[in-house]
Amino acid sequence: MSKLAINSQRCTRCGLCATACPLGIIRLPEGEQPRYVADGATRCIICGHCVAVCPSAAVEIEDARLDPAVYETGEAEIAPERLAAYLRMRRSVRNYLDTPVDRDTIERLLDIVRYAPTSGNSQSIRWLVIHNTGEVRRLTGLAVDWMRTVMVSDAPINAYFNFEGIIRSWDKGNDPVCRKAPHLVVAYGHRESLVAGTDAIIALAHLEIAAPSFGLGTCWAGFFQMAAARWEPLQRALDLPADHLPVHAMMLGYPLLRYQRPPKRNPLTVAWRS
Amino acid sequence: MSKLAINSQRCTRCGLCATACPLGIIRLPEGEQPRYVADGATRCIICGHCVAVCPSAAVEIEDARLDPAVYETGEAEIAPERLAAYLRMRRSVRNYLDTPVDRDTIERLLDIVRYAPTSGNSQSIRWLVIHNTGEVRRLTGLAVDWMRTVMVSDAPINAYFNFEGIIRSWDKGNDPVCRKAPHLVVAYGHRESLVAGTDAIIALAHLEIAAPSFGLGTCWAGFFQMAAARWEPLQRALDLPADHLPVHAMMLGYPLLRYQRPPKRNPLTVAWRS
Repeated sequence: MSKLAINSQRCTRCGLCATACPLGIIRLPEGEQPRYVADGATRCIICGHCVAVCPSAAVEIEDARLDPAVYETGEAEIAPERLAAYLRMRRSVRNYLDTPVDRDTIERLLDIVRYAPTSGNSQSIRWLVIHNTGEVRRLTGLAVDWMRTVMVSDAPINAYFNFEGIIRSWDKGNDPVCRKAPHLVVAYGHRESLVAGTDAIIALAHLEIAAPSFGLGTCWAGFFQMAAARWEPLQRALDLPADHLPVHAMMLGYPLLRYQRPPKRNPLTVAWRS
Repeated sequence: MSKLAINSQRCTRCGLCATACPLGIIRLPEGEQPRYVADGATRCIICGHCVAVCPSAAVEIEDARLDPAVYETGEAEIAPERLAAYLRMRRSVRNYLDTPVDRDTIERLLDIVRYAPTSGNSQSIRWLVIHNTGEVRRLTGLAVDWMRTVMVSDAPINAYFNFEGIIRSWDKGNDPVCRKAPHLVVAYGHRESLVAGTDAIIALAHLEIAAPSFGLGTCWAGFFQMAAARWEPLQRALDLPADHLPVHAMMLGYPLLRYQRPPKRNPLTVAWRS
């Protein structure tokens, strides 16, 4: 149950908190301070819009679920040309240095990802970081085991991906699955959640976009995730909490290569409905 | 079929193009310039890593699918504190000005999203922009029609979302589905693609992150997408190319409100495997 705390010295009754509330549970009774509607305290999803929008910093939400930290905005604006260049220079990194990334840096990165949107502000995504590189390799070996079973089956997925080539490469000492990344970040959610799948992919997109700023590289571990979704020995080894499923995994490490320019892409095609 | 064009004056045979190639289809024969392996020209996914990594700008990929433009990197680096502040200040915008966003601005935004990663560089995501605000409302009305059918059924989804409240609010002239956004961006992909779902969500996450840099606001149109995935009248009205399905939709417009600070979020919890 949340509490809406209004600083009466600061509140000007401008009503922006009520306007910004996505659930419409804040009202501004004549001559009074903003407050929740009758069942507002239980319905509040603690999205923080009311706090974020207040021009006089008069609004606080008190809720046991929230962290105690106070964030400063800093200088949050980035010009479009600069952000565009940054996003265009992002690369899927498939060659890593052996240098491990320290836990503190990974936590700083995930601490940004906390702010990625989630459906109804559920913030339901949970994180497993496979920090030990040997363990990443062992789990990757289990993913390759899954491919061995698929390759000799008539599963439709077989026609779509070249598992035979991947297995051959793995057996030669390469790693076409997790690219010998030092670390693996697994986003997971409750198996009965209707939204965890989308929310986790959005969160990992934030992680991938924030990583280069720390000098880090990432790559979506699509083959690993395919195996994790289907192969019980790998699921057992991941050992997630009961009733939780991995949604996606991402390789993480310091890049071996330095990219000099963005690539070309297919031309943009947009259909307009006017 | 792609062609690897090497500028012989510039190429130093450093081999970084071969190292960066995710498919390992570039080799560097003794004393020669880099070239594709035998079937490389057909296997190339035109990801552009070889072009992007070359320190002497000696590599070009020629392929009919690529746009003719040349991109300059500009100053692509952003300090972590600044990017963190930018990402933390991103909000799901649910109050919009009536002012329309001109097509040129939306194209500039989508032109950044072209660089979002896609599985195997398939770049399979396609875009439909509902630019006409009246048409956004009409389609939203169809999404609400779907909710009316669900509300009187015993579908499990009914217990999860408050469709009754949404319909009541819509009937009063509010729009809890698309928040009276002036525009709607729909990302769609081929129904038989195994990866379009993930790729489209990643692309829309890029769109949402780039938008504030242009002064624009977005919000994931989750309820709209739920209806679009299930309700034939809405699917007919979207009129996507045959065999294509909407993956997700996003509201777009100029924000009515200005947020002053980031919200608080739940504390970060990470499980470490070491």
